[in-house]
Amino acid sequence: MRTVLGVTGIRSEYDIMSSVFHAIKEHPELSLQLAVTGAHLSDAYGRTVDDIRNDGFEIVDEIESLINGDQAAARVKGLGIQLQGLVQTVSRVRPDWLLVLGDREESIATALVGAYMNIPVAHVAGGDRVVGNVDDQVRHAVTKLAHLHFTTNRESSERILRLGEQEFRVFNVGNPGLDRLLQVPDLDIGTIGDRLGFSVPVDKPIVMVIQHVISTEIDDAYRQMRVTLEAVAELGLPTILSYPNSDAGGQQMIRAIREFEHLPEIHAFKNIPRLEFVNLMRRSSCLLGNSSAGILEAPLLKLPVINVGNRQKGRLHAENVQFVSHDKSQIKRAVTKACFDLDYRAYVGNCANPYGNGRSSSLIADTLAHTPIDEKLLIKDITY
Amino acid sequence: MRTVLGVTGIRSEYDIMSSVFHAIKEHPELSLQLAVTGAHLSDAYGRTVDDIRNDGFEIVDEIESLINGDQAAARVKGLGIQLQGLVQTVSRVRPDWLLVLGDREESIATALVGAYMNIPVAHVAGGDRVVGNVDDQVRHAVTKLAHLHFTTNRESSERILRLGEQEFRVFNVGNPGLDRLLQVPDLDIGTIGDRLGFSVPVDKPIVMVIQHVISTEIDDAYRQMRVTLEAVAELGLPTILSYPNSDAGGQQMIRAIREFEHLPEIHAFKNIPRLEFVNLMRRSSCLLGNSSAGILEAPLLKLPVINVGNRQKGRLHAENVQFVSHDKSQIKRAVTKACFDLDYRAYVGNCANPYGNGRSSSLIADTLAHTPIDEKLLIKDITY
Amino acid sequence: MRTVLGVTGIRSEYDIMSSVFHAIKEHPELSLQLAVTGAHLSDAYGRTVDDIRNDGFEIVDEIESLINGDQAAARVKGLGIQLQGLVQTVSRVRPDWLLVLGDREESIATALVGAYMNIPVAHVAGGDRVVGNVDDQVRHAVTKLAHLHFTTNRESSERILRLGEQEFRVFNVGNPGLDRLLQVPDLDIGTIGDRLGFSVPVDKPIVMVIQHVISTEIDDAYRQMRVTLEAVAELGLPTILSYPNSDAGGQQMIRAIREFEHLPEIHAFKNIPRLEFVNLMRRSSCLLGNSSAGILEAPLLKLPVINVGNRQKGRLHAENVQFVSHDKSQIKRAVTKACFDLDYRAYVGNCANPYGNGRSSSLIADTLAHTPIDEKLLIKDITY
Amino acid sequence: MRTVLGVTGIRSEYDIMSSVFHAIKEHPELSLQLAVTGAHLSDAYGRTVDDIRNDGFEIVDEIESLINGDQAAARVKGLGIQLQGLVQTVSRVRPDWLLVLGDREESIATALVGAYMNIPVAHVAGGDRVVGNVDDQVRHAVTKLAHLHFTTNRESSERILRLGEQEFRVFNVGNPGLDRLLQVPDLDIGTIGDRLGFSVPVDKPIVMVIQHVISTEIDDAYRQMRVTLEAVAELGLPTILSYPNSDAGGQQMIRAIREFEHLPEIHAFKNIPRLEFVNLMRRSSCLLGNSSAGILEAPLLKLPVINVGNRQKGRLHAENVQFVSHDKSQIKRAVTKACFDLDYRAYVGNCANPYGNGRSSSLIADTLAHTPIDEKLLIKDITY
Repeated sequence: MRTVLGVTGIRSEYDIMSSVFHAIKEHPELSLQLAVTGAHLSDAYGRTVDDIRNDGFEIVDEIESLINGDQAAARVKGLGIQLQGLVQTVSRVRPDWLLVLGDREESIATALVGAYMNIPVAHVAGGDRVVGNVDDQVRHAVTKLAHLHFTTNRESSERILRLGEQEFRVFNVGNPGLDRLLQVPDLDIGTIGDRLGFSVPVDKPIVMVIQHVISTEIDDAYRQMRVTLEAVAELGLPTILSYPNSDAGGQQMIRAIREFEHLPEIHAFKNIPRLEFVNLMRRSSCLLGNSSAGILEAPLLKLPVINVGNRQKGRLHAENVQFVSHDKSQIKRAVTKACFDLDYRAYVGNCANPYGNGRSSSLIADTLAHTPIDEKLLIKDITY
Repeated sequence: MRTVLGVTGIRSEYDIMSSVFHAIKEHPELSLQLAVTGAHLSDAYGRTVDDIRNDGFEIVDEIESLINGDQAAARVKGLGIQLQGLVQTVSRVRPDWLLVLGDREESIATALVGAYMNIPVAHVAGGDRVVGNVDDQVRHAVTKLAHLHFTTNRESSERILRLGEQEFRVFNVGNPGLDRLLQVPDLDIGTIGDRLGFSVPVDKPIVMVIQHVISTEIDDAYRQMRVTLEAVAELGLPTILSYPNSDAGGQQMIRAIREFEHLPEIHAFKNIPRLEFVNLMRRSSCLLGNSSAGILEAPLLKLPVINVGNRQKGRLHAENVQFVSHDKSQIKRAVTKACFDLDYRAYVGNCANPYGNGRSSSLIADTLAHTPIDEKLLIKDITY
Repeated sequence: MRTVLGVTGIRSEYDIMSSVFHAIKEHPELSLQLAVTGAHLSDAYGRTVDDIRNDGFEIVDEIESLINGDQAAARVKGLGIQLQGLVQTVSRVRPDWLLVLGDREESIATALVGAYMNIPVAHVAGGDRVVGNVDDQVRHAVTKLAHLHFTTNRESSERILRLGEQEFRVFNVGNPGLDRLLQVPDLDIGTIGDRLGFSVPVDKPIVMVIQHVISTEIDDAYRQMRVTLEAVAELGLPTILSYPNSDAGGQQMIRAIREFEHLPEIHAFKNIPRLEFVNLMRRSSCLLGNSSAGILEAPLLKLPVINVGNRQKGRLHAENVQFVSHDKSQIKRAVTKACFDLDYRAYVGNCANPYGNGRSSSLIADTLAHTPIDEKLLIKDITY
Repeated sequence: MRTVLGVTGIRSEYDIMSSVFHAIKEHPELSLQLAVTGAHLSDAYGRTVDDIRNDGFEIVDEIESLINGDQAAARVKGLGIQLQGLVQTVSRVRPDWLLVLGDREESIATALVGAYMNIPVAHVAGGDRVVGNVDDQVRHAVTKLAHLHFTTNRESSERILRLGEQEFRVFNVGNPGLDRLLQVPDLDIGTIGDRLGFSVPVDKPIVMVIQHVISTEIDDAYRQMRVTLEAVAELGLPTILSYPNSDAGGQQMIRAIREFEHLPEIHAFKNIPRLEFVNLMRRSSCLLGNSSAGILEAPLLKLPVINVGNRQKGRLHAENVQFVSHDKSQIKRAVTKACFDLDYRAYVGNCANPYGNGRSSSLIADTLAHTPIDEKLLIKDITY
C-alpha cells in the first residue's frame, strides 16, 4: 500500500486533478492524502478548501501561503512560505510519492521538497510550451526536478525527452481534467440559473469570459481586461465572466471588472462551481479570454474559443481556437464568427482533441502503484 | 551603470566567485552588491562573512538560513527561509542582474527570485553533469530558470544547449575559480605552518583530504569518511584535512574526523583560508576525497587527485584524476601511486585543463555590462 | 546622531505615528528610517506604502507579511513572516532605537526583535485597557518586552507601573495622533467631494461609520456590521463608511458592506486619505462604530461618538461617547440624540480630552534623543 | 476527553516537563500530543527528539527552527520560523489546551499562537525573576499572553498576581521537574561510568559544572567559561562538565571547553542523559556554574551549589547556594567550602525546598482536565 501525497493550491488546478485524486483514493494499492495551500485557503478566492473537504478527501495539512499583495515579490515570498510548511508536512507524512500538477508555486515547491528529501515526485502536465510567462520557466524547472512525468499530449512528451529526461520517466496520459468533464451531470437551464442567482438567457448566444494575467505583462493587466470587456459590452450578448486567478496583477483585472459588472448583460462571478461551470460551457456559444480551458477542454465539448493575447499562444490546440490580439475590433469579429457563422461552427464541431480521451486518471494511478521506487527512479541521469 | 547583486552562501563557492566579484567591482560600467547567506553566517562553519567583508565587498544583507539539523528536511527548509529573505533584499536593491554560481540552495533561490520578479539571472557553472546528487537536479532546474549561462567548459555548454536553452544565452568562459588560483601569492613553508599553527612536513609527501557528503548517500556519510581516514592512517603519511561542507550528513563526517584527529600525522582544520589552502595544494603530493577542487583546480597545479566514491564521477576531467571506490586498499594503492610513482607523476605534469585558463572573470563582467536587458533576454523561449 | 528605526504596518497606526516620524526626522540629534510591512503593502488595503514614500520618509525595507486568509491562523503566521523579515532589516540597519505603536503584529514583532537583539524598544500607546480582544494581551506583552513606554494618558501610565515597569521608563506624552489632527488644513466641502468623487451633503447631519472586527467575535463579524448598516439605512441620514482593517473577519464585514453600498445615502470607501478623513470628521454630526478615533480624536473636535459593542468598552474616554450594543434600535436612538439633541451637543462641545493636547511628537523625539542607552535601559528589572 | 498539545524545544526543559507529559497521557480525561522543535531536532545538541519518541509520546509534528548562527539575530529568526510551523500544527490538531514551560522561543511562540487562535495556553514556571537576561522579559510577556499559570513557588505566584493576572488563573503547583527527580532509579557507580564511558572517581569529591550564556553578556561568554574552567583545573578535583544550551554565545563557550577538555580531571559531555545526570548529582559534592538545576533541584538532593555570575541572581533559593562572581579565587574558595567544610555541608543538609515536594505533575493534569474552557478563561481581563 503506497501513500501518495498530493499538493493542491488553487481551484483551476484542483479541477483538473480531482479525478486523479479520486482514482488514487479508490485504487486498491494506493492511499491518498492532500496538502492544501495557496489560494484554496483564501476567502478572497472562495476558500475552496471546503470544496475539497466536501469531495471526501483527507487533508493532512492546510498550509497558508498566499501573500496579500499584487506584486511579483509577494508571489515568490509565498513560495518560500509554502516550502517551509510543506517540508513540515512531508517530514511527518513520509509519503511514497509526491504528486503535483503544472507550473505554479506549489509545483516547484513540491518538486524541491521531493528532490531534497529523496521522495519521488510525479508531475502532471509538464513539457507544455506557453511562451511569455514565468510559469514556463518554472514548469521546465519542475521537470528537471521531478522523477515521473505525466504529460497531457504527444508534443509535451517529446519536449520533455529533448530536455534530457530518461524515456522510462515519461508517460503521455492525456489531460486528466477531461476525465471529469465527461462525467459532469447535466443541469437544466433553470437549475443553473437558480444556483448562480441569475436567469440564464436561452434565446441568445452566450459568451463566457475567463481572462488571466500574464506575469510579464502585469502592468498591462488592467487595460487588457478592459479591452475584452469593452468588446463584449459593445456586442451586447449575454456574457458570463469568472474572476481571474490570484496571480500578481489579478487585483488590477478585478478593478476593471468592477467597472463593467453593473451592465445588465454582464454576469460576473468570483467563483463558479465546477458543475455549473461545465454546464455553462455546454450551453455557451464561445469561450473568450485566455483560459487554458479553451485549449484543453473546449475541443471535447466542440466549443469555439477566442484566445486573446500572448497567453496560450503557440500551444498545441485543436481547430476550435481563434487567436486574436488585445484589440477590440478583432475580438468582436472573432466572437461574432464563433456565435453566428454556421459553417465555422460545423467545422469546430468536427475537431479532435490532442489532449486525450478522458481516461488519464486511472493511467496515472496505475503507474504510481506499479513503478518500482528504487535507485533508478530516485537518482536522475540525463540522456546526454 | 548596472547594479549586479551577487548571492553567496558558502566558502567553497565564494572561493570560485570572488575573482568574478572583483572584476565586476572594478568594471567601469558595473557596480557590485552582495547578499550573504547560508553557511557564511554560521560560527560552526567559520563565519566566513567576515572574510567577504575584509575583501572589501559591499554586503547589502545578511540572510541567515542555515537550519541546525542533519536532515534533508533542514536543507529544503533553509531554502524556504532564504527565499523569503532574498525577496526582501531584491525588492529593495532592485538590481539589474542577479548573479549566482552552482547548484546549492542559494542558486535555486536566486534563480526563482529572478524569474518571478522579472530580473535577469546570470548563472555560473551550469550544465555540469555529476550524477548521484540532488545538486544535479537543482543545477539543471536553475538552468531552466536563468537567463544567461556562464559555463566552465565546452561539454557543459553543449549540455545546456541540448536542454533547450537559446544559443545567445550560453557562454563558455572557463572556470573563474582558476583566475584567482594563479594570482595567489606564494608562501614559504614556515609561514604556512605559523598561520595554521602546525609544522608542515617537508621531508615526506603530503596528502590533502577533502571529502563531502553525497545527498543520496547521507546514511553512509560516517562510514565513507572513516574508510578514507583509515586508509591515510595506515599509510602514515602527513595528512591535512579540511572539514566538509554544511550539507546534510556533514555532522556525521565530522564525528568520524573527531575519532582520528588525535593522530600525530593528521591535521584537521575547520576552515583553511584560501591563501594557505592554495599554497598547501602547491606543496602536496596529492589531493584525496571528492572535492571539486580536484577536478577543476588541481590540473592547473599539476596535482594528482584520488577521487573517492560517486561524487564527481563521470565529470569532464584532465588526466590527473584516479577514480576509486570507498575501499581502503583501493585508496591506499592510488595514493601510493600518486605520491611515489614517478612515471605517473610526470604524466600528470603534462595534463591540460579543460576548465579554462584563468581569464573567466573579466569575460563574465564584460558580458554583464554589454548584454542588452530587454524582452528577448527576459522572456525565455526554448529552441523546440 | 542616533538612528531610530520605526516600524509601521497599517494606515490607521501610521496616521497616529506620522507626526512622531516627522518630529524625529527633523530633530537635530536623530535620524529616521522606516520598515514598512503588513497591510501597507497590500493592494487590497490601498497600498499605503506609497503615501509614506510621498510623505518623504526613507523606507529601508518593505516586508510583505499579510497572508490572504480570513482566519486567525493567517494573522499569527503573518507575524512569523514579519519577524523573519524584520530581523534581517535590523541586522543591517543596526539602529539605536526601535519604535512602534500599539498592539498589532508589528508591535510584538518589533518588541521581540529588540529584546532578543539587545536594541532598545520604544513603545507608543502601551497600557491601554480594551477588554475583549487578543490585542490587549499583545499590548501588555509588548510592554513587558519594551524598554521605554510613551503612554497616551494618565491611566495607561499607571497601569504600566502596576505591571511592574520601572518608573524611569514611563512617559505620559498624550496621543501623538492628535498632534497631526490640529495641523490638518481645512478643505471646503466642494473640494472634499471632488477628491472622493461624491457630493457631500450640506443640509443634513452626516454619520460617519468605522467598525472593526473583534478577534474573539470573528464569527459574529458579518452580523455586527449588518446591524449597524441596517440602523443607518433606516435612519436615512447621509452616511460615509470606511472599510475595516485587514484583521481576521474583515472580509466578512466587507461582504456585509457590499450588500448595502448600493443605497444612495451610503458612501463606502476602501481608504479615505487622512486629509479628507479629518475634514469629514469636522463636518460630521457623529461617528458610529468602534474606531479608536472616537475615543482619541473625536473629543478634540467635539464630535459625538456612538460606540457599538465590546471594542473600546471600559476605556478612558471623554464625555462625547455613548456606548451601545449591537442592537439596531439602541444604535438608532443614540445616533438621533447625537445629531439632533441640542443640549447633548452642547454638553459634548465642552468636553476635555484626557489624551493630550497635541504636542506629543516632540516630547517623544526629545526623549529618544536624550535617554541614555546603557545597561540600566537594556537590562529590565521589575519593581517587585 | 480534552486534547493537550505540549510544545517542547530543548532537553533541559523537557527534563522538567516529561513528568507532566506522563501525568497528562495517563489522565483518563486527557490525551497528549507533542510538537517538537528547536534544539531537540539538531544533531549538534544530541537530536533529543529520539529520546522523546522512546519515552512513548505521540509527536504530531517536528518543527525544525534552530538557525545555525551564534548571534542573537539567529535566535529571533528561529522564533519566526517556529511560529510559522506551529500555526500549521495547531490548525490541524485543534487542541483544547496548549501547554509550554518557561521563557524560551517556544514559550513565546506557543503563547502567541494560542492568543491569536483563541486556544487557551497553560504556562508552567512563569513569574520567576532572574534579572539579566532577555528570557526574563520573554517570560513576563508569555504571562501576559497565557490563560493559566502554573508557578513553581509562592513568590512567582505573587509576582504574577501583581502583574495584573486574575487570581483564578494562578496555581502554585511547585516545580514538576522535581517529581521526576525523586523517581529516578539509583545507578551504582560502575554502571554510571560504563554508560558514560569513563571511570567515576570514588575517593575524591566530584565537581559538576553546567554554565550557560547570559544573553546580555554574549560577548563575555568565552571568558566566563574560561574563568570557571581555570578554577576547577587549579583545584584539580575530578570535574564533570555538561555542554551549554544552544543559546547565542554557546558556541563561544564550547570553544573554551575544547581548550580544557584534554585535562585528565575534566570530563566533558555534549549531552548527559537524565538518568546518569541525576545519579551524578547524587554523588557529587557540589554543582558549579549557573544552571537552574542548582536552584530548583539541588535542594531536594541537599547538594551545595556555587552559582557564578548574574544568571539566577536574586532568585528565590534554599540555603544550599553560594553566589560568586566570575572570579577565579572566589570560585575556588566557594568550591572548597562546599566540598570540605563539614559544618557547611551539614547546614546544607537541612535545607528545605521552596520549589515544591514532587507532586506537581498530577496537579497540572487535574487542573487542565477540570478548568472550564469558556469566555471567562479566554477573554483576559486585568485586575486594574
